[in-house]
Amino acid sequence: MSVTVIPVRLGARSHEILVGEGLLPSAWIHRLRDVSLSTRFFVVADRKLARLARAAARFLGARCAGLALLPGGEATKDLPVIRWLWAEAARRCLDRRTVVVVIGGGVLGDAVGFFSATYLRGLRVVQAPTTLMAQVDSAIGGKTGINLPVGKNLVGAFHQPSLVIADPGVLATLPTREFRAGLAEVVKYGVIADAALFLRLERHAAAVLARDPSELRRIIVRCAAIKARVISLDEREMRGLRATLNFGHTIGHALEAATRYGALMHGEAVALGIVAATGLSQRFAGLPARDAERIVALIARLGLPVRLPSSARRPLDKILAALRLDKKATGGRPRFVLAQKIGRVITDVPVPLAAIRAALRELDCAPRRPRPAFRG
Amino acid sequence: MSVTVIPVRLGARSHEILVGEGLLPSAWIHRLRDVSLSTRFFVVADRKLARLARAAARFLGARCAGLALLPGGEATKDLPVIRWLWAEAARRCLDRRTVVVVIGGGVLGDAVGFFSATYLRGLRVVQAPTTLMAQVDSAIGGKTGINLPVGKNLVGAFHQPSLVIADPGVLATLPTREFRAGLAEVVKYGVIADAALFLRLERHAAAVLARDPSELRRIIVRCAAIKARVISLDEREMRGLRATLNFGHTIGHALEAATRYGALMHGEAVALGIVAATGLSQRFAGLPARDAERIVALIARLGLPVRLPSSARRPLDKILAALRLDKKATGGRPRFVLAQKIGRVITDVPVPLAAIRAALRELDCAPRRPRPAFRG
Repeated sequence: MSVTVIPVRLGARSHEILVGEGLLPSAWIHRLRDVSLSTRFFVVADRKLARLARAAARFLGARCAGLALLPGGEATKDLPVIRWLWAEAARRCLDRRTVVVVIGGGVLGDAVGFFSATYLRGLRVVQAPTTLMAQVDSAIGGKTGINLPVGKNLVGAFHQPSLVIADPGVLATLPTREFRAGLAEVVKYGVIADAALFLRLERHAAAVLARDPSELRRIIVRCAAIKARVISLDEREMRGLRATLNFGHTIGHALEAATRYGALMHGEAVALGIVAATGLSQRFAGLPARDAERIVALIARLGLPVRLPSSARRPLDKILAALRLDKKATGGRPRFVLAQKIGRVITDVPVPLAAIRAALRELDCAPRRPRPAFRG
Repeated sequence: MSVTVIPVRLGARSHEILVGEGLLPSAWIHRLRDVSLSTRFFVVADRKLARLARAAARFLGARCAGLALLPGGEATKDLPVIRWLWAEAARRCLDRRTVVVVIGGGVLGDAVGFFSATYLRGLRVVQAPTTLMAQVDSAIGGKTGINLPVGKNLVGAFHQPSLVIADPGVLATLPTREFRAGLAEVVKYGVIADAALFLRLERHAAAVLARDPSELRRIIVRCAAIKARVISLDEREMRGLRATLNFGHTIGHALEAATRYGALMHGEAVALGIVAATGLSQRFAGLPARDAERIVALIARLGLPVRLPSSARRPLDKILAALRLDKKATGGRPRFVLAQKIGRVITDVPVPLAAIRAALRELDCAPRRPRPAFRG
């Protein structure tokens, strides 16, 4: 089994991202540092992955302090789930040396990451993401959090994992819609930092959609390496660098909020957000028309929406109101990450309200299929 | 107004502790770094300090994003209070540049510190402790947390304040019992790190108990400086150093848990914990009998309990069970901080169960007044 190791350099919080088929359920343990034979593990997994989680627990044997299965879905990122995990942790007498192992998608990683960040003021956590979205993005970088009734991700903590295990083998059985949603983040990495990755996606879209193992692995390694570099240089989003990862997310988050996280998957909302940000980039960041066409065409080629599906259409004002609540908004005014060309973005760009309205109208009202001019 | 500034050196998390009369409600603001005229403040205060909190809010004027008054007492360190604060924060549109100002005792500082650590993955917080306990100990060092039904402080985060303001002026009106409880931590600092401070307490006990302003200020500065040094060298309790601050706290916490946090104040439990740890130190760390006598005599002289009051007596087994749940216990076995002499301690000392039982029996069953031999 070949494993690619991507270091995340963060001083005392340095760790590795492993990418390789067959790492789950057990091959990762030999790469985890600072564990002794007395270290115990608390395995928390998506209920749908019960078989994989049980195999991991069996492998850990007496060192498994417990196995908890949770339902997937956004409802997991909710305070009652965290409270339940805290109580379980006390019941199972987890101590400060216990390592939490999370096996699941982005939602589970965020929620269990937050539990790990807050129990006994922080337990070590191994993130084993099992969706493309989580493998290329959400499991990396230490952002954890839960939702409040009034807003998504309003509560959370920065808590770096001690190890990230991305096993592309588990993606084979991912539902099509969920797999494609993850590709939205891959497109994002291409636009913000890697023109070669973008070109590769264009040229090998068919292999990607067919989940060709070597193609997937290549993509995951590349995305993880970009994110690892960004995190190493700007862990807490103090400089502009980490903010580049939000390309497409400002409007994406607002669409999710306005549709109450029902009609759109996160990745689909990001895809739409990228389309909107691409239009704004042409007007306010000098993105060439040819690059804009390529971005929208690739999103469509990967089976992602470029217009709001009718089930997700909402009044413009509702979406604008959600934009003002954005975590990165300052004084109620959202700031945008915009592309200058494929592979390079600028951050913190103020955009006039009228232009945001126009961009949303483009998403909302046009026919669903991309216009021929965007076909590239 | 003269202010003593104690630096806490922690790289990007470096900050200052200010000690001086009259710093509250407003004189601190000029020492807060990295604030601009657009920075807003969310003031959270103990309901009993409403007047002081309102004066602070008035001073902040339009920059005050809100004032929240909470009841004091251990019930504040509870999840529903944190949930209420999260909702308030969303309602008041706090953003990442908002600074939280906490005016209150240790319980409030812990709870509001945890809220600050987790809202939007961390807001800056100014700790303005108003009890002796909080000024010399709990407001310093970044430990925040809340209680679970099954245990105290099981949930929390490390979140360094951006500024600590200790105004000895506010201690004048503190209830006697609460003031004395804080002195238990002062005695602790003397035993673990500062024989001169210990001697000073012995010689000036009357002035301390009379709350002589210059005596109080001297004590607070000394304790804060010791804690600042410990935190700078061992923020996360990875080396033994920060653990020295737990002298007297292992049995202290167990007594609090076994009495359900009702019969004893935290400082009183710590005083009893120090008495027990002093006995164990004689047996397992070579503490001279003369030093042991001085420690117990000083505790008594400062009006703190050296034997469990009858209202707080509990079966030994209940206390032992609580000891096994201690956060620092490893594999269910508590480790002790013990004194070698006044001013020097060792950490991580395993103590046989029989000796712990004997120490508890000493606290529990002997007459309340210290035996003459301990009078010094």
